[in-house]
Amino acid sequence: MKKGFFITLEGPDGSGKTTQAKRLGAYLEKIGLEVVLTREPGGTDLAETLRSLALSPEITMSKRVESLLHVAARADHVDKVIRPSLKAGKVVICDRFSDSTLVYQGLLGGMDLDELERLSLFGSAGLMPDVTFLIDGDPRILLTRRQARGVTDKFEAQGLSFQETIRQGYLSLSARYPERILLIDGEGDPDSITRTLIKKVEKFL
Amino acid sequence: MKKGFFITLEGPDGSGKTTQAKRLGAYLEKIGLEVVLTREPGGTDLAETLRSLALSPEITMSKRVESLLHVAARADHVDKVIRPSLKAGKVVICDRFSDSTLVYQGLLGGMDLDELERLSLFGSAGLMPDVTFLIDGDPRILLTRRQARGVTDKFEAQGLSFQETIRQGYLSLSARYPERILLIDGEGDPDSITRTLIKKVEKFL
Repeated sequence: MKKGFFITLEGPDGSGKTTQAKRLGAYLEKIGLEVVLTREPGGTDLAETLRSLALSPEITMSKRVESLLHVAARADHVDKVIRPSLKAGKVVICDRFSDSTLVYQGLLGGMDLDELERLSLFGSAGLMPDVTFLIDGDPRILLTRRQARGVTDKFEAQGLSFQETIRQGYLSLSARYPERILLIDGEGDPDSITRTLIKKVEKFL
Repeated sequence: MKKGFFITLEGPDGSGKTTQAKRLGAYLEKIGLEVVLTREPGGTDLAETLRSLALSPEITMSKRVESLLHVAARADHVDKVIRPSLKAGKVVICDRFSDSTLVYQGLLGGMDLDELERLSLFGSAGLMPDVTFLIDGDPRILLTRRQARGVTDKFEAQGLSFQETIRQGYLSLSARYPERILLIDGEGDPDSITRTLIKKVEKFL
């Protein structure tokens, strides 16, 4: 693996991204790599402030302003956490990154995708993930699995048709970047998903 | 004048922009036009919040993040104030607009000007001023005039060499957009500056 490697995980809320990011990080540390596990929304104090503004139900704003706030938050995250870690030769695993903006504000929010991509690249000063794992699965199967485990959260509350829209957005994005975005079958059990991720990451080692 | 007309005033702090914006607005109202006088930084609650974040001495951020916050603030201002007013056929006079970002974050802050212009156009969804008046003057003369009037403020505190840098930034920007940015001699007395502005605006009537 080249010195400094940037991995992002994408997928709808409830796809298991966060768990998998942690497991992948733990594995990479075990084999002796320095790992920085981070996530969006968040990553820095300023990023948190900006994202809470973007999500505040009391403030109305256009998708354009919302996109700018997300990209500004990401830019701060890149400046203060991601880029310095990569420069120090660490593996950065980020739970959600620019693809989330492209899906939520672009494909779902109606913002022009080419414009959003340019904005996104401006925000990250050209930084893109070395590899992105998209945890994908049929929302009905993910929901059933979650219900069996007694999990009731945002995934269920947002409704299956919304989850299906998100899924289609992510799938069309992965078709746009077939080299960078690798599809991971998220319908299996968490252990087998982790094994798949490790196997794919090992190819870069 | 076409229905809906967008005028911006630019120049360093202390060049007299704000006074002139008010006087020009008063004149245009007197001749029967509907005028909206607005200003940056500011314009909407969200824009104020974003700009106070950008200016907070407690939060460190890159010029990139600072630019994104200014553009996000402007985008909200365009969405909620400027564009609706123009659509309603009003004359909008805005004290500072995108040229301020190009000068302060671009020419002075070192951000790439082409990138900032693209970002700026994204933020305003393509809206540009119909005409921009750049109030220009030798900082030494402006300072002497202010001191004679007993004004001591940011202009003096920032120092003459800073004011000269700002001036040169604005002048090079006006050379870039000779059709849109009209140079106004800011060394004269306020009344004669107002007369000049009115004369130039009348050409659009």
